[in-house]
Amino acid sequence: MTYAAPVKAFHYLLRHAVDVDSIMATDAHSEVSHDLISDILDGAASFTQDVLAPLNWTGDQNPAQLNGDDVTASPGFKEAYAQFAEAGWQSLPMSTDIGGMGLPNALAAATSEMIYASNMAFGLCPMLTSSAVKAIDAHASDELKAKYLDKMVTGEWSGAMDLTEPQAGSDLGPLTTKAVPKGDGSYSITGQKIYITWGDHDCADNIIHLVLARLPDAPSGSRGISLFLCPKYMVEDDGTLGARNSFKPIGLEHKLGIHGSPTCVMEFDGATGWLVGEENRGLACMFTMMNEARLFVGVQGVAIGERAYQAALQYAHDRVQGKVINGEAGAPIIGHPDVRRMLIDMKSRLMGARAICMATAAASDMAACAADPDARKAAHAREALLTPIAKAYSTDLGVEVASIGVQVHGGMGFVEETGAAQHYRDARIAPIYEGTNGIQALDLIGRKLRRDGGEAMQSLIAELVSIHTMVKDGDVAQLCEPALRDGVETLKTATDIMLNASEIDAMAAASDYLALVGDVVAGAYLIKAAVKGKAAGDSLADNMQALANYHALSVMPRAGARLDIIRKGADVVFDFPVGQLADL
Amino acid sequence: MTYAAPVKAFHYLLRHAVDVDSIMATDAHSEVSHDLISDILDGAASFTQDVLAPLNWTGDQNPAQLNGDDVTASPGFKEAYAQFAEAGWQSLPMSTDIGGMGLPNALAAATSEMIYASNMAFGLCPMLTSSAVKAIDAHASDELKAKYLDKMVTGEWSGAMDLTEPQAGSDLGPLTTKAVPKGDGSYSITGQKIYITWGDHDCADNIIHLVLARLPDAPSGSRGISLFLCPKYMVEDDGTLGARNSFKPIGLEHKLGIHGSPTCVMEFDGATGWLVGEENRGLACMFTMMNEARLFVGVQGVAIGERAYQAALQYAHDRVQGKVINGEAGAPIIGHPDVRRMLIDMKSRLMGARAICMATAAASDMAACAADPDARKAAHAREALLTPIAKAYSTDLGVEVASIGVQVHGGMGFVEETGAAQHYRDARIAPIYEGTNGIQALDLIGRKLRRDGGEAMQSLIAELVSIHTMVKDGDVAQLCEPALRDGVETLKTATDIMLNASEIDAMAAASDYLALVGDVVAGAYLIKAAVKGKAAGDSLADNMQALANYHALSVMPRAGARLDIIRKGADVVFDFPVGQLADL
Repeated sequence: MTYAAPVKAFHYLLRHAVDVDSIMATDAHSEVSHDLISDILDGAASFTQDVLAPLNWTGDQNPAQLNGDDVTASPGFKEAYAQFAEAGWQSLPMSTDIGGMGLPNALAAATSEMIYASNMAFGLCPMLTSSAVKAIDAHASDELKAKYLDKMVTGEWSGAMDLTEPQAGSDLGPLTTKAVPKGDGSYSITGQKIYITWGDHDCADNIIHLVLARLPDAPSGSRGISLFLCPKYMVEDDGTLGARNSFKPIGLEHKLGIHGSPTCVMEFDGATGWLVGEENRGLACMFTMMNEARLFVGVQGVAIGERAYQAALQYAHDRVQGKVINGEAGAPIIGHPDVRRMLIDMKSRLMGARAICMATAAASDMAACAADPDARKAAHAREALLTPIAKAYSTDLGVEVASIGVQVHGGMGFVEETGAAQHYRDARIAPIYEGTNGIQALDLIGRKLRRDGGEAMQSLIAELVSIHTMVKDGDVAQLCEPALRDGVETLKTATDIMLNASEIDAMAAASDYLALVGDVVAGAYLIKAAVKGKAAGDSLADNMQALANYHALSVMPRAGARLDIIRKGADVVFDFPVGQLADL
Repeated sequence: MTYAAPVKAFHYLLRHAVDVDSIMATDAHSEVSHDLISDILDGAASFTQDVLAPLNWTGDQNPAQLNGDDVTASPGFKEAYAQFAEAGWQSLPMSTDIGGMGLPNALAAATSEMIYASNMAFGLCPMLTSSAVKAIDAHASDELKAKYLDKMVTGEWSGAMDLTEPQAGSDLGPLTTKAVPKGDGSYSITGQKIYITWGDHDCADNIIHLVLARLPDAPSGSRGISLFLCPKYMVEDDGTLGARNSFKPIGLEHKLGIHGSPTCVMEFDGATGWLVGEENRGLACMFTMMNEARLFVGVQGVAIGERAYQAALQYAHDRVQGKVINGEAGAPIIGHPDVRRMLIDMKSRLMGARAICMATAAASDMAACAADPDARKAAHAREALLTPIAKAYSTDLGVEVASIGVQVHGGMGFVEETGAAQHYRDARIAPIYEGTNGIQALDLIGRKLRRDGGEAMQSLIAELVSIHTMVKDGDVAQLCEPALRDGVETLKTATDIMLNASEIDAMAAASDYLALVGDVVAGAYLIKAAVKGKAAGDSLADNMQALANYHALSVMPRAGARLDIIRKGADVVFDFPVGQLADL
């Protein structure tokens, strides 16, 4: 159950797929060098391989425990968290204005993948902290920022997001937690929240909750929700910790996976909180956090897939069984064509999804830092367009790849001790949280595609066309040319259908459209990486070419198979007999 | 966590997809009437819904336990097993010659699906008994048959198959368990076996193990393996039980799923056994059992998928969240197009796989009972051809459908108490055991396709062509016609490629070819069922039509997307860089 961080893949994609040089050319990142990137990737590799990876199985087998009003994290997690904070990993992509390292998100996508791959349950804690920092930095008063941000940026204090209630999940409109002004600028918050990731634990000295609640006389529905900051321990003006606030964990969920991540039921009983942002604008503030979080959940899909792939590859090298063709009995199973097919299927698809996630992160860097305002705007539109794809495509793929990982192990994969099953269990949450993948698909076709008349998508298609032209006019990746040509045409056709469809037709076809976009873009980015790497003389370009070839022959063609259902989806979906269980 | 047996679907498919009337017209089944089929389906529905289904979660949460030398089954299982045996379910498809009911396998596919869907872990015990009965009936001496078969047929005694050893799994050649003649016609068997499903338990009075072992001086490899019958308790000549035999469970696996099914490590320490079949012909005897078992494992894929579908459908009806299009907030999520898409995707694909399984079972009935020897031969070839497809296609689909089932539940799906996660865990074993799905694919292209020059496949293609002709010349299922036409053409093309490919190319493409065949045949059978049902005035024909339409638009087109990789599979697969973990 070791983990070997895929540092070479990160370097390769940064150079040949997402053009990290253009990020390094911005003023904000002028101090970033390839040497610095190397140092950081190597440092993250060491930390995740040596410290976090060995605790992954520990966390699975020894879930966090609720003892009285306190959650105790899995054995070893507290010590690992201290090392994590000490090394400064929490602040890597955070702005230097608030004490962060100010490094590119594209690099953070790589370091985060290593953290999630080595120990996804652990990695959720810093992910929540990052999101909370982002929301506080964007929306909170200077006073709140001064009091809370510093120690969250270092990781001394962690963050948590308290959104969901039993009746309010994907739709937060019906939430009922109340916030009543206390007259001193603070509020008294009462209600119950569920599914609170790392809502309590003993790893950080304080936990800063961002809680959605309703003010008295707030409008009903989603326009009457405000955001509040509630620290676990009150913070005195001198920064020291005071009394415990009036909220606590009252239960932990018994989950399929990510056992090392405590998922809390939180009871707020007149807890003291402070408003973040404007009254009744809480959902907008939360979206600041959620959009970033969605990309990093996508990265989790790739990460778990990578870990599952590595376990399967190792097993296939080690397990001796059967006779390989034209060979002797007693050979490792990696010699069997079907085992090899499963492994390249895992790896090729993972690399494609990884390229999409890194491109999304790189777009966010250019959206923040490009000199030209138009370039910033275009990059922002690209980031927004790719985010739901990065999230949904990568997490669906994480589940599928983890399932193949079990299959490569045969019977051993079904026995928990092997560890392959843990990946299959852990991976299953990622398509659900931070907006289900169905909601990502609606976000893609609604806010990201139809609202701007397809402009951002046309820009993405133009990039894919330019990749195809590069292949057509060149002599590399020739095997991929027909698939890329067909894939781009399919994407154009599907996009036209979606832009012209009725709302309900578009909604019925949304998930298929997202998967189609993902397959074509992932394949195109692998081809681009192969061609650019070859041109740059990268010694690993042939490996990338092999992955691109498989993708072009096996994955990209699936896009075309989705056109019929995209065209006629709603009719067929609504013809579905939804009556009684035992009906035909 | 209720289960509603899909009795209407079984009736529908038996009538309109697999032509049960032709089975009922054989001499062997002349006493089978539609009323009898109804009675049996209703009886199985009651038993599985009322007795087995409530124990499914019990078994998951309270796995079988090893206490000393004995395994205690999950709470309630012993009582349920007594009811199962008492009602005669064990003997349903078994020959009347050995005391069975002699009913068609097509009907057993339906009753078995209900058993597996209600409680897969429980259902494995009778599945193993059935297989053991079949092997003993086919290969054992009259004396062994007289001593053991009666009580196995009733279910008073159960069966177990002891094949796997740590170094001998998919390839049994390296197994080392020894069998030494004792001079009195019996053998002394010594060795360790793993993954022995229901290898020990307290539900039946005796457990009859069929054990693969090597005689002294047997040839090495798979041609030196013999089959032995080892009862847990020795059976006296008067049929009473004597001393315990010298083998016992020494461990239970800690598995991802099917916790209610004890998976034993068995230690044979000079256990007494009797040869079944000829010396060194043990594998051939085992294959008698395995081929039947493979179909029923396929049925398990459908069964778990059906259970997952029912849970998802129920949840989608009950869960209120969000606003449906053009509607008010606060509607059940089944009103959301994407939820509806997930549900029809689950149901349509399940119905297609179920049709394949029932067609396989029906072919086995005609292979055994058709009056005309040529018809028997053709039916046998059809059964042999469809078996690996029924197994692999249905079990891969079971995993995917169970995963979608979790997704429909959102966050609740990831919490174990909901039960959706259990199906996701349970389903994962079926693609692995009874021959991994990769091995099914090799069986399909090797023994079933290339060995007979494609004759059995051409016969299947001819059936699909006739279905297409029926659609083309009719006025039903017109939406499906283009997909069926393309699907059949794709299957022809792929079959030609596979028949002419080199061995290694065929092996690399085998899994894709199997999936292609499955998608096309499943879709064609749904279309056939819709057309025939409509012609017969079946009131549920419109429902079947809706499922066929979705399949034709969304599933069948995937077949075409596999042609590129089938054509060029081996090259691409063997280009895969399989070096170090951290390499690109």
